[in-house]
Amino acid sequence: MIIYSKQVCTLDGIVEAYVKIKDGKIISIDKSCDSEFIDYSNLIIMPGYIDIHIHGWANGSFWMEKTPESIWKMQEHLPKCGVTSFLATTGADSIEETCRSIEAANIVYLNQKKGADFLGVHMEGPFISKEYKGLQQEEHCIEPNINLMERFYNLQDDKSMIKLMTLAPELNNAKELIKYNKERKIQNSIGHSGASFDCIKELKQYGLGGVTHMFSGMKAFHHRELSVVGAALYFDDLYCEFAKQTGMTVKHEAFDFVYRLKSDDKVYLTTDCQGIARTQKPFYHYIRGEKFEPDNGKLKITKDSGEIEFIDPDDYDSVKDLEVSYEDSVKNMLKHTNMDLISLSKITSLNPAKYIGVDNKKGSIEIGKDADIIALDSNFNVIKCYCKGIEY
Amino acid sequence: MIIYSKQVCTLDGIVEAYVKIKDGKIISIDKSCDSEFIDYSNLIIMPGYIDIHIHGWANGSFWMEKTPESIWKMQEHLPKCGVTSFLATTGADSIEETCRSIEAANIVYLNQKKGADFLGVHMEGPFISKEYKGLQQEEHCIEPNINLMERFYNLQDDKSMIKLMTLAPELNNAKELIKYNKERKIQNSIGHSGASFDCIKELKQYGLGGVTHMFSGMKAFHHRELSVVGAALYFDDLYCEFAKQTGMTVKHEAFDFVYRLKSDDKVYLTTDCQGIARTQKPFYHYIRGEKFEPDNGKLKITKDSGEIEFIDPDDYDSVKDLEVSYEDSVKNMLKHTNMDLISLSKITSLNPAKYIGVDNKKGSIEIGKDADIIALDSNFNVIKCYCKGIEY
Repeated sequence: MIIYSKQVCTLDGIVEAYVKIKDGKIISIDKSCDSEFIDYSNLIIMPGYIDIHIHGWANGSFWMEKTPESIWKMQEHLPKCGVTSFLATTGADSIEETCRSIEAANIVYLNQKKGADFLGVHMEGPFISKEYKGLQQEEHCIEPNINLMERFYNLQDDKSMIKLMTLAPELNNAKELIKYNKERKIQNSIGHSGASFDCIKELKQYGLGGVTHMFSGMKAFHHRELSVVGAALYFDDLYCEFAKQTGMTVKHEAFDFVYRLKSDDKVYLTTDCQGIARTQKPFYHYIRGEKFEPDNGKLKITKDSGEIEFIDPDDYDSVKDLEVSYEDSVKNMLKHTNMDLISLSKITSLNPAKYIGVDNKKGSIEIGKDADIIALDSNFNVIKCYCKGIEY
Repeated sequence: MIIYSKQVCTLDGIVEAYVKIKDGKIISIDKSCDSEFIDYSNLIIMPGYIDIHIHGWANGSFWMEKTPESIWKMQEHLPKCGVTSFLATTGADSIEETCRSIEAANIVYLNQKKGADFLGVHMEGPFISKEYKGLQQEEHCIEPNINLMERFYNLQDDKSMIKLMTLAPELNNAKELIKYNKERKIQNSIGHSGASFDCIKELKQYGLGGVTHMFSGMKAFHHRELSVVGAALYFDDLYCEFAKQTGMTVKHEAFDFVYRLKSDDKVYLTTDCQGIARTQKPFYHYIRGEKFEPDNGKLKITKDSGEIEFIDPDDYDSVKDLEVSYEDSVKNMLKHTNMDLISLSKITSLNPAKYIGVDNKKGSIEIGKDADIIALDSNFNVIKCYCKGIEY
């Protein structure tokens, strides 16, 4: 299969090119072509979005359901939003529930269904701070424990499945955890943390790669105690994740100056979507001011105003607008921050791929990499999506 | 007079040059010379430091004494620290005391003594926020009042003497004050302020040029309400003043990332020194944890530990180390932030000159500008200082 466009976004520039795909890989990028090709002349061809912080999407929630089916549904529907690969993300849960999550992920990791590539697991917790828990469950925010981490690690059939862990470096034993993860190629992200600047400065050398959802769930900046936010701003080599650019959680102007400071090399986008329709128990979302609860097979949503709505949690179209998709997050961001296509492709694809160590096969349109490709119109609507060369 | 060095810092680069001075001005910068010259081969030749936020220095305090003599002493001693021109700075005081300050400044403005060039007055208040008063006197922090501003303005014999005003844009009538000042070429700086981001965004167009002592005395950044700090970070065109780089008031790392974000075009250094030895009444400095009080012609210093010291407030050498000089502030900064000489000359000279509108005659080593020149050794010690061509 050959895809043609006047605007193919490669790391070397935006080029007019014919991208040849075989066995799910990009095998050539040519200036001319003498065989049949799919003509996307007026669309932008970009590497697919990589969401490394997503708990659930629409009618599948790994965090809330902890089933293979929940991840398979994410695989099925994420390409509609331009996401061609992802890390299914846990939250702070009981040890048993966390183990159940890893076991479910195991099954999918070895039995991928068609759709977005399931790259593995991002463990957001349980080794995070109670004080900065955000939407996490306080009783399950615990201190780092290597034996427990080993138990999680050993539950994986493929020892490369857990690729990322969000943790609070100020907690006891964090240094050992960071080293343990680093040795096993699990990237360490600072998140749900009240760490001091000096704590991060000291532990960075053992393998702290960046911060999870910059600004949220972390100790704020002060000019005499820079804390997590200040460390993320100061240290050139720390990556900053921004989750869901709606302008609600983090104002666009805050994103904007961090992006300018850190450059397009050290910022990446995620959605942090939860698949909230699939909640298994009543759940109050304090930022949205809405209560979500399962009710006889339906999802009951009670707003702070008292207004009540029932929707079908299984029906994709009914639930897809409950949260902001990767596609819409990109559009929101571009309304407020000037960015060329190459920078966009870095913060949505190359940087998350690098962060979790899969940039040998993901993150850019390059010969030899997986054919994870999206075609966008000039308004950044996702028109076509290919995951390993298969169209969705 | 001709000054020669292998390293003359001009805006076009660091050049080997012969700088010819006549009648207090730079009249040529040449590659060769066939007359007598002063040989500073191994020293760095830079434009003199310009301190536009200094209340007092060593044995002269404009803020505390409000006398022509206090400014004359600043003129006399500032060249020792490389400062070749300055704005004497008021604080929030009673109306009568503020008027007395302006009258004292008037006298000096028309009767400059030798030494650093007295460029006029920076009014830090009285139109500032009680809530963000810092070391200012709360009872004298008042709302903007155009009639009162006009009274201050009209007290000047030369209507260009007041060059800068620090104010809180969130206060009632601030818009009128900002416009009033702008029309009279008085630069408006946001300081001692709890302004919201939106307030600054709206009032910027009427003439807000930047912020006074970045981070201190202003509402902190939050990612959902960026406030003064966030506005300073976000808006490219706002200048950021950093006062006294000791690492105590503002951590070096906080300075560092702001400098990288804003670039060497929009940051400038001041000392915010008070001439604390000249206090006229007991004064507790909460950051230092020391009480200063006049005591029978001596200055009594009582530390929080109970330790007491007496010094002679008239004796330059006894008091010069009570506060960190411009020279030492530069040295501190350079220990922690990489900066070439041209950037250094911008943030210490060109930028403050631009900010207060005197860059037609100050701020760089250029033909036609005042011969305000310092010679530094490689450790940034001030070895020689020329103010309008006169050596100090």
